[in-house]
Amino acid sequence: MSGTREKANRAAVDALLAVEPVLVAIHSAHRAMGLPRTTVLTSGPTLPFRAYTGGQRAAVIGGALYEGLADDEAAAVAAFERGDITVRGCQEFGCVGSLAGVTTASMPVAVVADERTGDRAYCTLYEGDSADRLNYGTYTAATRENLETLRLQVAPALDGLVSVQSEPLRLKPIMARALTMGDELHSRNAAATLLFLRRLLIGAKNLGLDLEYALTALCDDYFFLRLSMAASKVMANAMRGYEDSSVVTAMGFSCKEFGIQVSGTGDTWFTGPLPTFEDHRLEPGFDESDIEFMGGESIITEVVGLGGIAQAAGLPLQRSSGGQVAPMLARTTAMYDITVAESPDFLIPVLNYRGTPLGLDVARIAESGSVTPYLDIGIAGRSGRQIGGGVARAPMRPFLSAWEALRAG
Amino acid sequence: MSGTREKANRAAVDALLAVEPVLVAIHSAHRAMGLPRTTVLTSGPTLPFRAYTGGQRAAVIGGALYEGLADDEAAAVAAFERGDITVRGCQEFGCVGSLAGVTTASMPVAVVADERTGDRAYCTLYEGDSADRLNYGTYTAATRENLETLRLQVAPALDGLVSVQSEPLRLKPIMARALTMGDELHSRNAAATLLFLRRLLIGAKNLGLDLEYALTALCDDYFFLRLSMAASKVMANAMRGYEDSSVVTAMGFSCKEFGIQVSGTGDTWFTGPLPTFEDHRLEPGFDESDIEFMGGESIITEVVGLGGIAQAAGLPLQRSSGGQVAPMLARTTAMYDITVAESPDFLIPVLNYRGTPLGLDVARIAESGSVTPYLDIGIAGRSGRQIGGGVARAPMRPFLSAWEALRAG
Repeated sequence: MSGTREKANRAAVDALLAVEPVLVAIHSAHRAMGLPRTTVLTSGPTLPFRAYTGGQRAAVIGGALYEGLADDEAAAVAAFERGDITVRGCQEFGCVGSLAGVTTASMPVAVVADERTGDRAYCTLYEGDSADRLNYGTYTAATRENLETLRLQVAPALDGLVSVQSEPLRLKPIMARALTMGDELHSRNAAATLLFLRRLLIGAKNLGLDLEYALTALCDDYFFLRLSMAASKVMANAMRGYEDSSVVTAMGFSCKEFGIQVSGTGDTWFTGPLPTFEDHRLEPGFDESDIEFMGGESIITEVVGLGGIAQAAGLPLQRSSGGQVAPMLARTTAMYDITVAESPDFLIPVLNYRGTPLGLDVARIAESGSVTPYLDIGIAGRSGRQIGGGVARAPMRPFLSAWEALRAG
Repeated sequence: MSGTREKANRAAVDALLAVEPVLVAIHSAHRAMGLPRTTVLTSGPTLPFRAYTGGQRAAVIGGALYEGLADDEAAAVAAFERGDITVRGCQEFGCVGSLAGVTTASMPVAVVADERTGDRAYCTLYEGDSADRLNYGTYTAATRENLETLRLQVAPALDGLVSVQSEPLRLKPIMARALTMGDELHSRNAAATLLFLRRLLIGAKNLGLDLEYALTALCDDYFFLRLSMAASKVMANAMRGYEDSSVVTAMGFSCKEFGIQVSGTGDTWFTGPLPTFEDHRLEPGFDESDIEFMGGESIITEVVGLGGIAQAAGLPLQRSSGGQVAPMLARTTAMYDITVAESPDFLIPVLNYRGTPLGLDVARIAESGSVTPYLDIGIAGRSGRQIGGGVARAPMRPFLSAWEALRAG
C-alpha cells in the first residue's frame, strides 16, 4: 500500500468534505453555463453523433428540435452530421445528466455552487412522471409542452423563491437528514424533496405570504404528533364496545397511575403503577433522578400499533430516545405475540414491509406472563421541561385485572 | 382460545381499520368539544384534585391561571378544592393529552373526525421546543405568551388552511407514508410533519399564492434528485487533480459504454461495458427484454457515497427498485471494502449511524478482483419511458484500466 497514495486519497476526500453545496439559482443552461445554442449535451463520455443509438439518439435529436435547431428529425440528423449542431458529454460542461441527460441552451438548470470556492455544477430539472420525457428518449407534443412548462412556469417560480432567501440554501444538511428518512438520494428523494420545500418556504422573505405562523409551527418535527394522537383516538374508539373482545381501546397515565380500557369492559379503567424505562436519552446535565412522570396519553398511538409498538420504523429514535438497531427491531417483533392482527395500512420497510402489530390483547399479555407494550414517550424533568425521550414498558397489573374482569364478566 | 373472543377481537380491529381520520378544523376546545370554561382536563384516569402532585399539579393549576379562573396559584388551589374549578381526565371528553395533557376551553385543538361516521377526537397543539411548556409543568410569562401565540396566530393560520382544502385532509395516508420514512408517529413525527405541510399547501385553493407551479413540482418525490446530482458534482469535483490519488471523481454512461474519471489521471475517461442489474422492479407489462440503456450520469451520487453505495439508507426502494432488506444492507457493507473513508456527514440509522462508504478507490476495486460499485438507477424502456428502477453493478474493466494507468504514470 503506497503511503503517498493514501495521503493523496485522504486529501481528495477531505477536499470533498469541505464543500458546502448551495443552490444559488435556477437559470437557463445558456445563462448559467454559457452553453452554446448549437450544442446538445448528453450523458456519458462524449461519442461521435453516429455512435448514439436508440433512445439516447432520439433524445439528442429531440433536444435539437426542442431548441429549434431543425424543423424535423431528418434535418436535425443532417445538421448533426454536418457539424452545424454538436453533441457533447454533459460533464465536459460541469453539468450532470439524468438518464439520457439531454441539456440544451434554453433549458433551466439548477445552479449549485460551493459556498467557499464558488465552484459550480449544474443539472436540469425533473420532467415529472409523464410517460413522454425527453430523457427517456421520447419527444412528442406532450414532451415539448412539459419542457415549456418547466422553462416558463416552474423554473421562474422556483428561481423566485431561491432569490429571496435570507440565508444560503445549503443542500448538505437536507441531504444528511434525508438519508435518515429512507432516502439514498439517487433513486429515492422523497424526504429530501419535502425538506427542500419547507426550507425554501421558511427561508423566503417578503413573499407577502400570510402563512408565516403556520409554516413556523410546521418546522417543528413534533408538530404532527398531536394529529397522530387525535387520529389514533378516533381509530381506537372504533374498537369500543365489542362485548367479548379483549383488545385494549385506550391507555393513559397520570402522575400517579397507569390505566387501560378494554373493548369488552367499556369505560372502566384498569390501573397499575407507572411505566418503567428500558432505554432513554437525557439532555446533557440531567440524570435519572431528574425524571418525573407528569401524565401522558400520547400512548394512544401505541393502541393503534404505532409508537413503541412500531419502534422498528423509527430507527432515528436512537439519537433522541436511546437504543440500538437490534433491540429496536426485536421490540416490534415481540409485540406480534401480544396483538391480534397486523396492520394492512401501516407497513415497516426494515421488516420487509410487514404490517405493524395491531390490537393489544389483554388475554395474550396476561398469558405471556411478562410481555407488555413498549411505549415511546417524552421525558419531563422535575425542573419542569422536556429533558429527553425514551422507551418505557407498561406495567403488567392493569392487563391482568382487565383479563380477570373480562373472564368474570 | 375462545372463538367468541377471537371473533370479537377481529370485529374490533376491522372497525378500527375502517376508520378514515380527517383533520376538519383547528378550533377552541370550548367550540370543538363543548368543554366548560371551569373544567381543566389532564392526562390519565381522573383523580381527585389533591392526588395530582409535582409537575402535573403545576400544569393543572397553570391551566386554570391561563384560562383566567384565578388570579394566582393559591386562589386556583382554593377554587379547585371548593369545586369551583373541576379537573377531569382528557379521555372523558374524547380528547387525548400529550404529557400532562392540560386542555382548557380557550385552547385550540385539532379536530379529527372519522370521515364515514363523523366520530371525533381532539388534541391540543404542540407548544414548540420552548423550555417553558405548560405540559411539562411550567407556567411562566413565556409559557403564557407561547400559548397565546398558538391561540391567536398559529391556530387561525392553520385553521384557515384547513378550511380551504379542496379534498378531505385524510391523515392515514400521511401516517402510513411517514412510517416508511423513519417515523413511528409517537416520539418521531419528522416525516409526517413535512408530508402534512405539503398536503396542506397543495390542497389549499384560492389562497392567491403565486407558488402553484413550484408546489406542484415539489410534489414529485424525484424533484430533489437533480439538486442531489448537482451538489454531488460540486463535491466530487473537489477531489480532482490529486496527483497520486486513486479515488474516482466522476462516473457516467452513454448508450454504448460506461466510464470513470480518477483524481490522479485528470480528465481521461476509462471505459468499459454497460452496467448489469442485480435487482430491479419493472412496471406491469414489461420484462427484461424491454430494458434499454440510454445513458446516465445520476451515478455521480454514488461517487460521493450516496445512491447504490448507501442502499441501506433507502430501504423503501424495495417497493420501487426491488430487493430485500438483508441484501440491501449487505450491499452498503460491501462498499466499505472499496472506499477510502466513511462520511462524517452522511449517516445511516439502520447501521447504527455509521457513515456512508466514501471515496471509491480504483486500487481497492482492482485488488478485490470482483467488487465494483452498486448503482441505483432508473430503467428506461425501448418504448421510450421509465419502466422501473433497479440496482446495477458497474463493470470492472474501467477500474482496472484506471489503476494500470495510475501505476504506469
